[in-house]
Amino acid sequence: MSTSTTHFTVTAIAGGVTAPAGFSSAAVASGIKKKAGALDLAIIAADRVVTAAALFTTNLAQAAPVLVSKQHLHATAGTARAIVVNAGCANACTGDAGIAHARRMAADVAGALGCRVDEVLVASTGVIGVALPIDKVAAGISQASRALTRDRSSDAALAIMTTDPFPKEYAVTVDTAAGSFTIGGTAKGSGMIEPNMATMLGFLTTDAHVAPALLQRALVESARDTFNAITVDGETSTNDCVFLMASGASTVVIDDDTYPALLAGLLAVARELAVGIVRGGEGATKLVTINVTDARSVEDAQRVAKTIANSPLVKTAIHGADPNWGRIVAAAGRSGVRFDVNRATVHVGGVLLFEHGLPHDEAAPAAEKHLQGQEIRIDVSLGSGGGHTATVWTCDLSAEYVRINGEYRT
Amino acid sequence: MSTSTTHFTVTAIAGGVTAPAGFSSAAVASGIKKKAGALDLAIIAADRVVTAAALFTTNLAQAAPVLVSKQHLHATAGTARAIVVNAGCANACTGDAGIAHARRMAADVAGALGCRVDEVLVASTGVIGVALPIDKVAAGISQASRALTRDRSSDAALAIMTTDPFPKEYAVTVDTAAGSFTIGGTAKGSGMIEPNMATMLGFLTTDAHVAPALLQRALVESARDTFNAITVDGETSTNDCVFLMASGASTVVIDDDTYPALLAGLLAVARELAVGIVRGGEGATKLVTINVTDARSVEDAQRVAKTIANSPLVKTAIHGADPNWGRIVAAAGRSGVRFDVNRATVHVGGVLLFEHGLPHDEAAPAAEKHLQGQEIRIDVSLGSGGGHTATVWTCDLSAEYVRINGEYRT
Repeated sequence: MSTSTTHFTVTAIAGGVTAPAGFSSAAVASGIKKKAGALDLAIIAADRVVTAAALFTTNLAQAAPVLVSKQHLHATAGTARAIVVNAGCANACTGDAGIAHARRMAADVAGALGCRVDEVLVASTGVIGVALPIDKVAAGISQASRALTRDRSSDAALAIMTTDPFPKEYAVTVDTAAGSFTIGGTAKGSGMIEPNMATMLGFLTTDAHVAPALLQRALVESARDTFNAITVDGETSTNDCVFLMASGASTVVIDDDTYPALLAGLLAVARELAVGIVRGGEGATKLVTINVTDARSVEDAQRVAKTIANSPLVKTAIHGADPNWGRIVAAAGRSGVRFDVNRATVHVGGVLLFEHGLPHDEAAPAAEKHLQGQEIRIDVSLGSGGGHTATVWTCDLSAEYVRINGEYRT
Repeated sequence: MSTSTTHFTVTAIAGGVTAPAGFSSAAVASGIKKKAGALDLAIIAADRVVTAAALFTTNLAQAAPVLVSKQHLHATAGTARAIVVNAGCANACTGDAGIAHARRMAADVAGALGCRVDEVLVASTGVIGVALPIDKVAAGISQASRALTRDRSSDAALAIMTTDPFPKEYAVTVDTAAGSFTIGGTAKGSGMIEPNMATMLGFLTTDAHVAPALLQRALVESARDTFNAITVDGETSTNDCVFLMASGASTVVIDDDTYPALLAGLLAVARELAVGIVRGGEGATKLVTINVTDARSVEDAQRVAKTIANSPLVKTAIHGADPNWGRIVAAAGRSGVRFDVNRATVHVGGVLLFEHGLPHDEAAPAAEKHLQGQEIRIDVSLGSGGGHTATVWTCDLSAEYVRINGEYRT
């Protein structure tokens, strides 16, 4: 981040992906989801071709829409006109036919909007290994492309959901000396209408004017401590992706001076959406913030925080409101990061439970009380003298998670 | 392993750690476990000082008995007279007092048997962060050291249990051209009388004559595909350890010719104990064998197998008898190992479910029928042309796991 002293303010506003100027959206019930009338297909469109950036799943098994979107973004050197997304079918492990279907989705949107096929990005979420009902999808695209509006972004937030318990959208306005711009977004998290695998989709828009390379940098930097700092069960999907489009419809051009303001705004939106994904995690009853401090590097801090966050023993203890510092220490100890356990400390809800290699059992009741709430905070200092930190958000592990994911698909 | 053509046979026999000549054991109810009369302290003794080898937890947070046993084995250059082990209290995160308690356990056994303090190895399992009731432990050691016998190894197998649903002991006799020798062992797995963290303890004995360095090599090699190839929840404990003592009381000296026979015998015992640990995993209802083939290296194969084995989505699908090949492919895809998904195959119970990047949904009913059993087999070929393989054993993830680990300790 720049060390610029530019002042700016970030203020939450109503709305989502169409809060920034230059974007519209529409969502329809195309019949991909089994539930009749359920919104399952959305288009998020810019008024003209704009700059675009993306992050894609690191899983080797990548769904057709991921492969096609990567190609398109590369072919256009970071520009796009629209995103088309469906829920209910992931179009993953669908072979050449799946690639053809993803391209068809882009082509149909391009035809409707009058842009190039590779100016359309594609995302899907839902059951994998099942072919898209492409005729229904095509009809849905036709319908949605005629219904684009700035007024119904919440429909898009609903259409991308699978087993998400609630829709997630958020927007902020950023005021700088150079003028104001807006950032909006929506996301869906971990859950399937028919249990398969957790998929995270995120769609961000801004009316700031940002060159493609800078936009990609801003997306990467803002995702690090938000979308990439959350975990429900340590799984990554075949379909995970986050898209960011910048219309330039405001007066603000992002340069060295205004970049910190863009990043701050993106962080605010991405953090809200990411935390929303965790709150809506499968079977989740608690939001857990894990803060690791005094590590030798940011990577070390992240690795320890993620190991704690994904530990089944830690997650079940939190679910049971058990102030089990031992599981936290043991998870940190097996993370692969070197530190001196005797210099480490563990706080739960601000209550010191472990220091100098020894427990503070007298504090357990206060920590237990904190754990009975729904917002849990765990602080681990590695005492390495390095001073680096990382925060990861996760949820507890409940019997409901097992039920959701253990039920047969039929 | 040697390419020697030496012939040998491995035959299962009754018994455990005292099946090999030169060993005795005793177990007592010392009062560490809350349940009155529960066996909770055992001594496994050799008739004289013998060669010894050990594997210890890789967790940075290491319990006092682990630290003390490491020191002792180093000081004696790989020899020992006895092992003392207790369940019900892990003596972990107990500071200097914990170290003093572990040393006291060794000293008391040494005093009773007439050996050096550092010729006694110490292991503990149970609640962490709680001081050992050292007076009870000392009285138990005194009692046990007077009760050593070759006839009651099953008592030791019971004494080391925490929430293990059944005791685990096994023994084999190995017949070679150079004579016969015996290997025995006992182990405890993942579960606590009061939920804390899973701890694996393993104790192996043999009456073969093996030099310390060769004994350590044999333990490392036999653990790789047994104790180190099992996982319940991916956790490693502060207290995990496996000890192996060789009395030399048989006529067989282990050299290049007989090493393969020793290794085969150790593998047979360690595999039976390791699989028993998985069968007795917390909340487990199924034993899952994950076999990864055609990897570029053994490490790649192990990494893929362990990622699949620890995937909450895979484990819950197996629990629900869902032939969800997609979760298996996705877990392999996020393992960090490079392979071509289009060349990979997935079989469940011998039924081909995924190949050429596409599902075989018509086979799902046959795979589902297999998954309704209690012995599950998953085969994943990475199709890399490398030909390397690995097998990992795990169990399913049930709501009972959450219940066991989510209940507050009091």
